[in-house]
Amino acid sequence: MPHMQPVTFTPIGVIHSPYKEKFGIPRQPSLVPAARITLELVPPFDHPDAVRGLEAFSHVWISFVFHQTAARGWTPLVRPPRLGGNAKVGVFASRSTHRPNPLGLSLVELLGVDTSNGVRLLLGGADLLDGTPVLDIKPYIPFVEARPEAQGGFVDGPPPALAVSWSEQASADLAAATDAPADFAELIVQVLAQDPRPAYQDDPERIYGVRLYCYDVRFKVAGQSAQVLEICR
Amino acid sequence: MPHMQPVTFTPIGVIHSPYKEKFGIPRQPSLVPAARITLELVPPFDHPDAVRGLEAFSHVWISFVFHQTAARGWTPLVRPPRLGGNAKVGVFASRSTHRPNPLGLSLVELLGVDTSNGVRLLLGGADLLDGTPVLDIKPYIPFVEARPEAQGGFVDGPPPALAVSWSEQASADLAAATDAPADFAELIVQVLAQDPRPAYQDDPERIYGVRLYCYDVRFKVAGQSAQVLEICR
Repeated sequence: MPHMQPVTFTPIGVIHSPYKEKFGIPRQPSLVPAARITLELVPPFDHPDAVRGLEAFSHVWISFVFHQTAARGWTPLVRPPRLGGNAKVGVFASRSTHRPNPLGLSLVELLGVDTSNGVRLLLGGADLLDGTPVLDIKPYIPFVEARPEAQGGFVDGPPPALAVSWSEQASADLAAATDAPADFAELIVQVLAQDPRPAYQDDPERIYGVRLYCYDVRFKVAGQSAQVLEICR
Repeated sequence: MPHMQPVTFTPIGVIHSPYKEKFGIPRQPSLVPAARITLELVPPFDHPDAVRGLEAFSHVWISFVFHQTAARGWTPLVRPPRLGGNAKVGVFASRSTHRPNPLGLSLVELLGVDTSNGVRLLLGGADLLDGTPVLDIKPYIPFVEARPEAQGGFVDGPPPALAVSWSEQASADLAAATDAPADFAELIVQVLAQDPRPAYQDDPERIYGVRLYCYDVRFKVAGQSAQVLEICR
């Protein structure tokens, strides 16, 4: 088969994101609307013409590389967190990052197109790691791609959200974090509400840390409640 | 930026399709439900485990390479057929095949999973060329990816369908095409109904040919009506 050779792609852009590591990133986009993420096109793709008319679309597809986990390779079976980390499904029946080709696909809200100096897209609700190489941007076509009647297998709705409370220390840390964006508290609440713990870990005394911007947000989870303990620089 | 190097992907499978050339392929998937297309996984990706559980999903994403047009390169501006081939939009505001990375994305119906001898997926409504190299398969997650409220820019609905009639010659040719699939007539009608002519060609005497399976289907279009003229082997 003549066309089955490997194919090489060049990143057209890079993601700037508060998510500095995989832990804490929502398992689906749109679960954390407060995450404001920027996609910056890189030369020679950063011409304003390349995004002309894009602002007429409310949602776009981002095709990207799972760069942080690409070196780990793949296995035919994976354990999706949505199944409690216990049951196995085929890698192609999952959105796992450990795929034969480490190719990611996210539907994100297009909040703005800035062509004043190069090209920057402001994205809402994205689940993208800082530094992610982007391969393509495509407009979302609702009349073709919105299929509410589709059967979603084992992924049949958003996971139940945790209630999030703040310790006194965490509230004080937040007040002192004057260089964080205005919606930092909202981002923390949304990230913790979607329960970033690994599947099947349920130790109410265990302290986790999630990196958002330049901060380490420490928290614990008991039952259906998360508490922010402290926010360390 | 350390991760911005080119990235190389290996095809995991290949498409078997009645569409033998780009002309005639619907401009969006799902417009031609009669197109029965098979995705065959290739070694070492053809293990039944890799698709375990996939049958619980009614729709899947296929990421693929626009292999036939990849060598043509890209330009920042393209002329989408939906705008009459006249107006220009940015390549990232279109689903044009002439992209910086020739990466295609199609939402298709998953009609069957056959693991009796390797792995074959039966796909419905796909807009994929015969021989297309496939890079990834992902399940469609309706609660995240079905956004009927999204703004679809200039692509706000299916194009108006042409009425399709048959000449006596075409009907005779169809009756003689005993090695074609049972739904060949349905496929021809659906392919012609979505008006495969290049934008801005409107010559009622011009005869077009579209290759489906091993046949050349000759037709012409006047107003909102297409007529099948003959079906040549």
